[in-house]
Amino acid sequence: MPRQITGFSNDTVKRLRALRDKKARRAEGLFLAEGLRILAEARDVGRLPEIVAYAAGPGLHPLAAEIAAEAEAAGADVIETTVEILAKMSGKDNPQAILGAYRQPDTALSAIDRAVAPLWLVGERLRDPGNIGTMLRTGDAVAAGGLILIDDCADPFSVEAVRASMGAIFTQKVALASWDEFIAWLRAGPGQLVGTSLQTDHDYLDPSYAAPCFLLVGNESQGLPEAYEAQCDLLVKMPMLGRADSLNAAVAAAVMAFHIRASWRNR
Amino acid sequence: MPRQITGFSNDTVKRLRALRDKKARRAEGLFLAEGLRILAEARDVGRLPEIVAYAAGPGLHPLAAEIAAEAEAAGADVIETTVEILAKMSGKDNPQAILGAYRQPDTALSAIDRAVAPLWLVGERLRDPGNIGTMLRTGDAVAAGGLILIDDCADPFSVEAVRASMGAIFTQKVALASWDEFIAWLRAGPGQLVGTSLQTDHDYLDPSYAAPCFLLVGNESQGLPEAYEAQCDLLVKMPMLGRADSLNAAVAAAVMAFHIRASWRNR
Repeated sequence: MPRQITGFSNDTVKRLRALRDKKARRAEGLFLAEGLRILAEARDVGRLPEIVAYAAGPGLHPLAAEIAAEAEAAGADVIETTVEILAKMSGKDNPQAILGAYRQPDTALSAIDRAVAPLWLVGERLRDPGNIGTMLRTGDAVAAGGLILIDDCADPFSVEAVRASMGAIFTQKVALASWDEFIAWLRAGPGQLVGTSLQTDHDYLDPSYAAPCFLLVGNESQGLPEAYEAQCDLLVKMPMLGRADSLNAAVAAAVMAFHIRASWRNR
Repeated sequence: MPRQITGFSNDTVKRLRALRDKKARRAEGLFLAEGLRILAEARDVGRLPEIVAYAAGPGLHPLAAEIAAEAEAAGADVIETTVEILAKMSGKDNPQAILGAYRQPDTALSAIDRAVAPLWLVGERLRDPGNIGTMLRTGDAVAAGGLILIDDCADPFSVEAVRASMGAIFTQKVALASWDEFIAWLRAGPGQLVGTSLQTDHDYLDPSYAAPCFLLVGNESQGLPEAYEAQCDLLVKMPMLGRADSLNAAVAAAVMAFHIRASWRNR
């Protein structure tokens, strides 16, 4: 049976709330996912939370109760609580009715098998967790293998990134690496490294892309460092027909990823 | 000379701070833009703020001082203030060093001349101001004419939308309309209405797109209502190769917009 918790000072409540903070996520090896839609997505791919909290009441969705019961049977700490406490945990007036804390997967590059997918997304110093989550969501849509985050990126396991991923955090591989680690790993196997850049005349529509293709997008305001661009097999540019000189990073990744998939359609 | 303001209770400070709220924006007909990059972008297309606030000091960028001086010469209320007051106005610990309040443009559909651009973006019940700003930024990149917002969308003049637009709020036309108003206006002239949908087998790569093309993207979680889809000239679907059934709305708009432009490249 789930424990009934109605006090803010309960240890599990405190522990869940702490997971909004990166240090606590790292120390515990856990991350938060909020809302029935993402929890159901996780369950569908065989992932159950280690801690679950939900608001009891007649409005509780049967699927939420089912996920909580399954998680409990698998050994999770399950607490039934109030909307007020969920609001306190999420920092929102209208919190989701259920949330779960999940074990973070292995984020070592060595855990990635590049042969399982023809396309991989690579982000360099991405600072916006929403962009990271959106890139995971796009990666799922184009059947990319996952997202490799280079150097100092925002945390892909932050609440904001998980939310923007719409569940893709559970289906896409995520790896974290320095540039040197990434290049050493990349060059130890097959792979075309394609960078999006403003410093090239190659229109993105012209080249032919080779699988496994590693699509590299740089920092939101600075783009890729020149030294990194120099190590790409191919630099391409999306035409900017207006006044702005760049796209949102997640948009650039998506336009490129969909084009690369489209260019492979009739092979 | 700019007025020196160091008190939170100053009327201009209060007025600027109030513009973070939609009601005040509507009542005043103004909106806020923050940061030198966006203010410079606005100035480059001939738009000056009616109110300007900046933090005085040796770190002030010469361009910020220049924009403030130009605005003052054009009759703007210009105040020189402190970082603390800017932080209070923006609700952020690290505020931008300059902000401006701009006159909202005419958002009537009748102000749009569809002949000036081959592509227009149309959003229906978009709830996320970040998506609206990102669509404006993408629209600039593909030389769209602007963004038409249908029914109950988030405010394109919110601080978050303006920030995500990266200045495109000053270069793209914005119109607000109900669906019925939009359809009546659309059908009174040339235009292909293309809806992105999950309810079709037409892959987005197959059709030929006709200018002026109106690219319609629906609500973030619900997509387009069936009745609206039925009035489109063409419904297309982006293939979803993974588990998710949809893309982020701004991503979907960008993938479509870049594909449509690409399909016109060799005409």
